[in-house]
Amino acid sequence: MAEAPLVGIIMGSKSDLPAMEACTEQLDELGVPYELVIASAHRAPARVHEWASTAADRGIKVIIAAAGKAAHLGGVVAAYTPLPIVGVPMKTSDLGGMDSLLSMVQMPSGVPVACVAIGGAKNAAIYATQILGATMPEYRSKIIEFKNAMAEA
Amino acid sequence: MAEAPLVGIIMGSKSDLPAMEACTEQLDELGVPYELVIASAHRAPARVHEWASTAADRGIKVIIAAAGKAAHLGGVVAAYTPLPIVGVPMKTSDLGGMDSLLSMVQMPSGVPVACVAIGGAKNAAIYATQILGATMPEYRSKIIEFKNAMAEA
Amino acid sequence: MAEAPLVGIIMGSKSDLPAMEACTEQLDELGVPYELVIASAHRAPARVHEWASTAADRGIKVIIAAAGKAAHLGGVVAAYTPLPIVGVPMKTSDLGGMDSLLSMVQMPSGVPVACVAIGGAKNAAIYATQILGATMPEYRSKIIEFKNAMAEA
Amino acid sequence: MAEAPLVGIIMGSKSDLPAMEACTEQLDELGVPYELVIASAHRAPARVHEWASTAADRGIKVIIAAAGKAAHLGGVVAAYTPLPIVGVPMKTSDLGGMDSLLSMVQMPSGVPVACVAIGGAKNAAIYATQILGATMPEYRSKIIEFKNAMAEA
Amino acid sequence: MAEAPLVGIIMGSKSDLPAMEACTEQLDELGVPYELVIASAHRAPARVHEWASTAADRGIKVIIAAAGKAAHLGGVVAAYTPLPIVGVPMKTSDLGGMDSLLSMVQMPSGVPVACVAIGGAKNAAIYATQILGATMPEYRSKIIEFKNAMAEA
Amino acid sequence: MAEAPLVGIIMGSKSDLPAMEACTEQLDELGVPYELVIASAHRAPARVHEWASTAADRGIKVIIAAAGKAAHLGGVVAAYTPLPIVGVPMKTSDLGGMDSLLSMVQMPSGVPVACVAIGGAKNAAIYATQILGATMPEYRSKIIEFKNAMAEA
Amino acid sequence: MAEAPLVGIIMGSKSDLPAMEACTEQLDELGVPYELVIASAHRAPARVHEWASTAADRGIKVIIAAAGKAAHLGGVVAAYTPLPIVGVPMKTSDLGGMDSLLSMVQMPSGVPVACVAIGGAKNAAIYATQILGATMPEYRSKIIEFKNAMAEA
Amino acid sequence: MAEAPLVGIIMGSKSDLPAMEACTEQLDELGVPYELVIASAHRAPARVHEWASTAADRGIKVIIAAAGKAAHLGGVVAAYTPLPIVGVPMKTSDLGGMDSLLSMVQMPSGVPVACVAIGGAKNAAIYATQILGATMPEYRSKIIEFKNAMAEA
Repeated sequence: MAEAPLVGIIMGSKSDLPAMEACTEQLDELGVPYELVIASAHRAPARVHEWASTAADRGIKVIIAAAGKAAHLGGVVAAYTPLPIVGVPMKTSDLGGMDSLLSMVQMPSGVPVACVAIGGAKNAAIYATQILGATMPEYRSKIIEFKNAMAEA
Repeated sequence: MAEAPLVGIIMGSKSDLPAMEACTEQLDELGVPYELVIASAHRAPARVHEWASTAADRGIKVIIAAAGKAAHLGGVVAAYTPLPIVGVPMKTSDLGGMDSLLSMVQMPSGVPVACVAIGGAKNAAIYATQILGATMPEYRSKIIEFKNAMAEA
Repeated sequence: MAEAPLVGIIMGSKSDLPAMEACTEQLDELGVPYELVIASAHRAPARVHEWASTAADRGIKVIIAAAGKAAHLGGVVAAYTPLPIVGVPMKTSDLGGMDSLLSMVQMPSGVPVACVAIGGAKNAAIYATQILGATMPEYRSKIIEFKNAMAEA
Repeated sequence: MAEAPLVGIIMGSKSDLPAMEACTEQLDELGVPYELVIASAHRAPARVHEWASTAADRGIKVIIAAAGKAAHLGGVVAAYTPLPIVGVPMKTSDLGGMDSLLSMVQMPSGVPVACVAIGGAKNAAIYATQILGATMPEYRSKIIEFKNAMAEA
Repeated sequence: MAEAPLVGIIMGSKSDLPAMEACTEQLDELGVPYELVIASAHRAPARVHEWASTAADRGIKVIIAAAGKAAHLGGVVAAYTPLPIVGVPMKTSDLGGMDSLLSMVQMPSGVPVACVAIGGAKNAAIYATQILGATMPEYRSKIIEFKNAMAEA
Repeated sequence: MAEAPLVGIIMGSKSDLPAMEACTEQLDELGVPYELVIASAHRAPARVHEWASTAADRGIKVIIAAAGKAAHLGGVVAAYTPLPIVGVPMKTSDLGGMDSLLSMVQMPSGVPVACVAIGGAKNAAIYATQILGATMPEYRSKIIEFKNAMAEA
Repeated sequence: MAEAPLVGIIMGSKSDLPAMEACTEQLDELGVPYELVIASAHRAPARVHEWASTAADRGIKVIIAAAGKAAHLGGVVAAYTPLPIVGVPMKTSDLGGMDSLLSMVQMPSGVPVACVAIGGAKNAAIYATQILGATMPEYRSKIIEFKNAMAEA
Repeated sequence: MAEAPLVGIIMGSKSDLPAMEACTEQLDELGVPYELVIASAHRAPARVHEWASTAADRGIKVIIAAAGKAAHLGGVVAAYTPLPIVGVPMKTSDLGGMDSLLSMVQMPSGVPVACVAIGGAKNAAIYATQILGATMPEYRSKIIEFKNAMAEA
């Protein structure tokens, strides 16, 4: 990743890493430079705030936040940045991820987090690239190629 | 709206209009030009496909799709465009919108729809503007102003 | 299957095939000719539309649509054909199939999809045969035999 | 209704009548002759069995069963007839109809009931007509006209 | 079991037998004579009706009905007998038994089925014995002994 | 009620009285003598224990316990008496009574509470009478009459 | 409130005030001095952090946090203080408060928020007083009086 | 544990012990003396009452109650003591612990139980220590150290 990262991935726990590999692999495949940080909104709030507050100035355009259970990470990051946040609610062993989903998606008025499916790590990567592609032609092209390949598969 | 629309809003039914006023009002307030169409993915699929397939070429950068119950509209539009889709699951009278939410957010691998909260019309507008602001400085500024005003309120 | 197919089975993903074997086995047992296609409403919408739009003219009388998560396949097919659609909501690993069920069954006014149980592959076959049997005596007889055998078992 | 009924509508309670008017109105509009009976699977099982057992011989081709709460009516009728059953789970005041839906749709292997949405009275009528239209050209035409009108509306 | 059975156990499928062993073991332990039949309300309705209609005359005092998914067995039996029905909703692989529970417990006015917990085979046996013990001193004593033993354990 | 009560009704709060009137009216109609007490398992545990511990000795044969939210009343009473408990989970304003239902029905092994439907006050009365009728012919007759009247209605 | 506050109440929105009056009234009745602040974790994060970080030093012993939907307020406060947080999940118009409850209670390992019932404003006050009463005899006495009065009522 | 216990842990069943080890380990790590008892609210109510009624006088300051399914233990203990109760809803094999959670958290007005997450054994220990730390400086320090260590990890 010589290029400056355009996507910032943050996850609440090291245990989310395996499930989020589908996200980084998809970003690699789509040629999107990213950075990745593990920091809990509850256990290390200062680090989350520092990272979120400076993300835009470092050139990050989109943030992917993955967390489980009472998944506040997306909302906490959203409070500190003007960037769009893509939430990935992690599957949980007791409630299947319904807790993560509702904790992420049901954000109150004024501070949205937009969620992909429970465990939707790969889709978060595609969606972040679609956001870049909204105005950056090279990523628009990547998405079009990706969709064409999928339709032919 | 003399300016060319940057956001395309589509909703499945005329009955969704009152709930979606909070979306258009917020876009107006943030100075984001938009277009709005009412077309059901199930009752008028050809119109939805035509609209979705041509949205990017007409200069639309982000699509907001609002629908209720088995809310396929976001997914159907997503199948026809490389643009990012912001889903708004509408509240339903029997299941409270849980059906709309799951039908929108649980998209399968490859074709994401990112959802805001049930009935999150206003947040969809903010999120669409955040997507524009990812690379367009004037909308970044609007979001920053909006967040500052909110913090002071 | 030398006979022209009367039932069209469509499923959203190759991964649905093992679960849908109970459907094709039951149709075989009931002597109902069918065709089977795998095509995602989201990844390959053009193929789905082509297939759905022409099904009736090819002599198909009933369509069985199996899909999981935000299971739009049944609804998308329903938008393109006058034929009755039998939905099979697939079990999902996180929400048990509640997402698939609500995405299929909660269809808005005007475009029904009638669902069997989560994972109800075998019942979809029986139901499709009952639809044929509504007016075709040979399939009515098959169902009566089947029910008698079941009662004696 | 001078014509012999092709659709049999059964509902568990007189209190389901107002919600089911959308069903009879739609059948009237589509020109489908029907008969209607109110009989509870639990309070008047003998009447339900008598009616269900003789429906096919009276020329009924499809049965619409509407019930709420532990909605067994569809399943009980299904046990006594080879005809296809379209279940309409009624909305309930406490659980919104989730109880009715699961009680109807989760039928065990061998005896399907295919459900439309909670409160989907109108869609049940359309679906019953689609079943007739599977083999009867006049009802196929009615459905095609209905869909065209809907697309133009 | 030389004694005439006081409890009738009915279950919808042979596959429910292993889970229901905790019920028969508990009845054995409490010295309650019972009979057991496997008959599906949907696949073999005539056998269920015959069994249910004659249970009271054969001396049965309480019926335990175990079934899963759209679990109508308890309700169907209840329609044919004045005896109290104890429902055992079976755990299901997709919805955990929530479908079985709602299908059993949400009975409409006039025809109750009283449910124990999902998979509550042992508790159904205890409850049936408590019903006997309401008026029969020897079973009242058994329950008191059982409760005392439990408190000391 | 000159006769000694055979059914004891306990409810957790005075606010449950209107909903439970359907229970006392049905018992009156069936000619079943009862007593009624309002006592919260949490706010007045000593009164609940005293009442439950002495119910059997006072000649009570069945207990109906109605409570809402974290509805422990049935379980608490069950801990103190060998009598069968019929639980009535009260509808709640936020979760529709799902909390009451699960708190009542999911009793652990050894101490059953058998539940009727959410808000099933009338059915609790019928079920309690069925329990009496298991061995007492006069109540068996009442239930048979009641069922016949219902079938004819 | 001449006395220094021992309980800090924070709520996410002015719209929560009416529902939280039962909390302040109960604290008044129990003679517990409190302070109250309205500040959203998402809209005004800096104020929440400032308030939470300094609460312990200002002599606050317990914090009551009330919020609805994706209710992160309790968790955000918990990240900044060693004090115990009592969460009050607010009822929501679409999901009844299930979203608020799961967002509050399902906190990840290391940073607990202990929740009372949905809408449990009064109980939060009692619980906060119980926490004070754990070591402060005057509040222990208040709770004992309160419980005695309740048992007698 | 030479010191007098400050925390009382009670659990409904020996089967809860493995899941609750995370609780005792965390209390050991934080240096909080505790006692532990296994007693079911339903099977051994007298022992629960005896233990709960005397806890405060034995010097216990906080009670942790862990139970599953219709988890009444916390509420039953709460009825007998002025101490604050921390509820731990145990995961269940059928409903994932949703039953335990609602049975614990939805306590009626007047008698709160404050719940941590499903299976939140470790968090219950931390929360109990936070309650002690509300007024006891040595435990306040322990919590601050714990939180600092967590942030650095």
